[in-house]
Amino acid sequence: MLPARSSLRSFTRSVLSSFSFSAQRPLSSAMSASPPFHQEPHKLLVIPGPIEVSDDVLYANAHPAMSHVSPEFIPILGDCIRMTREVLLAPTSQPFLISGSGTLGWDQVAANLVEPGEDVLVLKTGFFGDSFEDCLTVYGANVHHITAPVGDVVSQADIAKALKERKYKIVTFTHVDTSTGVLSDAKMIGHLVKELSPETLVVLDGVCSVASEEIRQEEWNIDVVLSASQKGLGVPPGLSILSASQKAIKVFQERKTPVTSYYASWQKWLPVMQAYEKGTAAYFATPPVNLVYALHKSLSIITKESPTLVERWKLHSEASAKVKDACAALGLKQVPVNPENAANGMTAVYFPEGITAGDVIPRLSQLDVVVAGGLHKDIKDKYFRIGHMGVTAVEHQRGDLEKIISSLGSALKDAQAAKNS
Amino acid sequence: MLPARSSLRSFTRSVLSSFSFSAQRPLSSAMSASPPFHQEPHKLLVIPGPIEVSDDVLYANAHPAMSHVSPEFIPILGDCIRMTREVLLAPTSQPFLISGSGTLGWDQVAANLVEPGEDVLVLKTGFFGDSFEDCLTVYGANVHHITAPVGDVVSQADIAKALKERKYKIVTFTHVDTSTGVLSDAKMIGHLVKELSPETLVVLDGVCSVASEEIRQEEWNIDVVLSASQKGLGVPPGLSILSASQKAIKVFQERKTPVTSYYASWQKWLPVMQAYEKGTAAYFATPPVNLVYALHKSLSIITKESPTLVERWKLHSEASAKVKDACAALGLKQVPVNPENAANGMTAVYFPEGITAGDVIPRLSQLDVVVAGGLHKDIKDKYFRIGHMGVTAVEHQRGDLEKIISSLGSALKDAQAAKNS
Repeated sequence: MLPARSSLRSFTRSVLSSFSFSAQRPLSSAMSASPPFHQEPHKLLVIPGPIEVSDDVLYANAHPAMSHVSPEFIPILGDCIRMTREVLLAPTSQPFLISGSGTLGWDQVAANLVEPGEDVLVLKTGFFGDSFEDCLTVYGANVHHITAPVGDVVSQADIAKALKERKYKIVTFTHVDTSTGVLSDAKMIGHLVKELSPETLVVLDGVCSVASEEIRQEEWNIDVVLSASQKGLGVPPGLSILSASQKAIKVFQERKTPVTSYYASWQKWLPVMQAYEKGTAAYFATPPVNLVYALHKSLSIITKESPTLVERWKLHSEASAKVKDACAALGLKQVPVNPENAANGMTAVYFPEGITAGDVIPRLSQLDVVVAGGLHKDIKDKYFRIGHMGVTAVEHQRGDLEKIISSLGSALKDAQAAKNS
Repeated sequence: MLPARSSLRSFTRSVLSSFSFSAQRPLSSAMSASPPFHQEPHKLLVIPGPIEVSDDVLYANAHPAMSHVSPEFIPILGDCIRMTREVLLAPTSQPFLISGSGTLGWDQVAANLVEPGEDVLVLKTGFFGDSFEDCLTVYGANVHHITAPVGDVVSQADIAKALKERKYKIVTFTHVDTSTGVLSDAKMIGHLVKELSPETLVVLDGVCSVASEEIRQEEWNIDVVLSASQKGLGVPPGLSILSASQKAIKVFQERKTPVTSYYASWQKWLPVMQAYEKGTAAYFATPPVNLVYALHKSLSIITKESPTLVERWKLHSEASAKVKDACAALGLKQVPVNPENAANGMTAVYFPEGITAGDVIPRLSQLDVVVAGGLHKDIKDKYFRIGHMGVTAVEHQRGDLEKIISSLGSALKDAQAAKNS
């Protein structure tokens, strides 16, 4: 019922929009080949997002002003929608690319897929699960949760038990919780829900996992993957990126109560995404044109150039092993309690006994390496976090990993020497 | 009640965030001086937003990746908050700078300032008033409206009558409705509400007016100005920019029911804005770092360089007169029925008899000038729109106005010759 009215409106708008002609030169293709642009020298940013952005992508972010309804821009956004499906191995899904931060993905899920009073199960492996729960509560969900011990995942047995006790509208989990570096087993969760509660929607928070961790959305029975531009995708922050299964879209279309957000409403965005993909414009809110050009550049590299997506996952895994092995050699203990549940796009490690953030992080910064402190409330002063996503993991000629490892060794040595002196 | 909990959380987060040290070089200052960057050649974009962006601002948008909680970035966002107050002449207001499009400003108003069932009066001068009403309805407001005839404003007498009949929580109006080019009298509305219904909050939708039309938020009794980055402020799209009076903040803080949005909640954003302004980081959602650098560059030019803000308003007025006089000389009738209610940042004019969008707009595009077609449902095929905001109005050496005027003359002449042949 809801989408019908919206589709009509979108159609009207797309007709109106077609009057904003423009034949600006397709700069994006010219910009693909060795840009004359080189970003300013800067310290290596290896927090778990935002991450280092390539010159090509930054140059696309400096694209001249373009009309959001122009014949040149329409296929750029259309391509981004199509390439999002490729990156998530979700050929039949419906992507949503919306101006906003990753957090907006939670609102999209809570406002479009949950009706007030419905039961939702949140699997928590850190800070971001707490926040997603908070968001779901705002929109009236009846939230249940299972919280893993710090550094651990929620066990298959606990999830199975919960699914047998109650029928949930949605199960959510954080694929990589940026606060702990814990990687949940998306494949296991997707298959388990399908087996025990096939009507339940599975939502993967992939803000810190898309394009750095293996995700096979459709094969793994994941109904929603939500993410953002500034992590594995290697684009500046400002885009909420979400991919919804046709099953999720059907649940949205059949909801009995009105959508409880305006800006995050798929009632508004679905016809816009459909129009741009078909090659016509539609208007609900102005898309972040430059960020879309930047995303287009990055998704083109990921989906069409070498290494392939599968090779990228492997390169992230190798980068992760390299950093984690170096940490082990330095005597640093991982926050994830099981190596199998450690993220490949980031590393969270405890400081050595007697050493604090103030001893290590400023020293790393002096060496031009920017890492992040702790975030999880239970251990916040005891650990720090290193990101190794995107170009840092994939482009070996940059030497980012070597710089991280050698700087970390020097900083720790200096810190310990200072303590002992 | 609500903000207290939130403040505590923000404090905790700001402490955590302080562990993400980084001493990246302050590139923004280096980037201020004659950048080596020149954007690609492109057609002149003179739709009523997005508008042409200067090389300096685009270069800032290509800033290297920076941590959103770094000591270098914190004052950049802090400065943007302070400069937003300067641009709006609102020295005591609370700005909110959030990743999202201008539309998100409506959600901020509807979710934070209106409680379900409260009466809101929407003064409508075009398409955008209809949409704001739609948004308010989603969040449960009891919406009343007064709709002006196409091209006209709502009269002072009609507003006064409505204010005497009922007490409204909020009165909203679109300062410049981009669909009609109609400029509402913000000063009159602000003063009238203060006189007749002093408790009512006045909300100005300034998406298409901030930095191109005179706005004196505090002097004129405007409680909320909401805007976006891609119009008069001359930045790529992707930032929702809002300034709330202390009276509005108090109304928010004293609300009896929970805020009905997560992403747009001031409960989340207020402590973040306060922290960045004080010089510490706080986290709710990752800010769009590059767009904030771009906004910083543009706001610095507007508030600190020549021309001054007041001179800018005059330059927009002069640019507008120049374009409107040229249109009159070509026999084109304005959509605004009264010249006093015509925007200074854009021009909406009817096509001559027998001429359509398809005759004129593609011809303008051939001449490298991109304008916009009609948007208001009642007259959509009968008119078109030209934007003259930002650098197009202010930097005479660009010759944008001359190019618009000469191209328009040629395109119309060609279109008429083709009809007559």
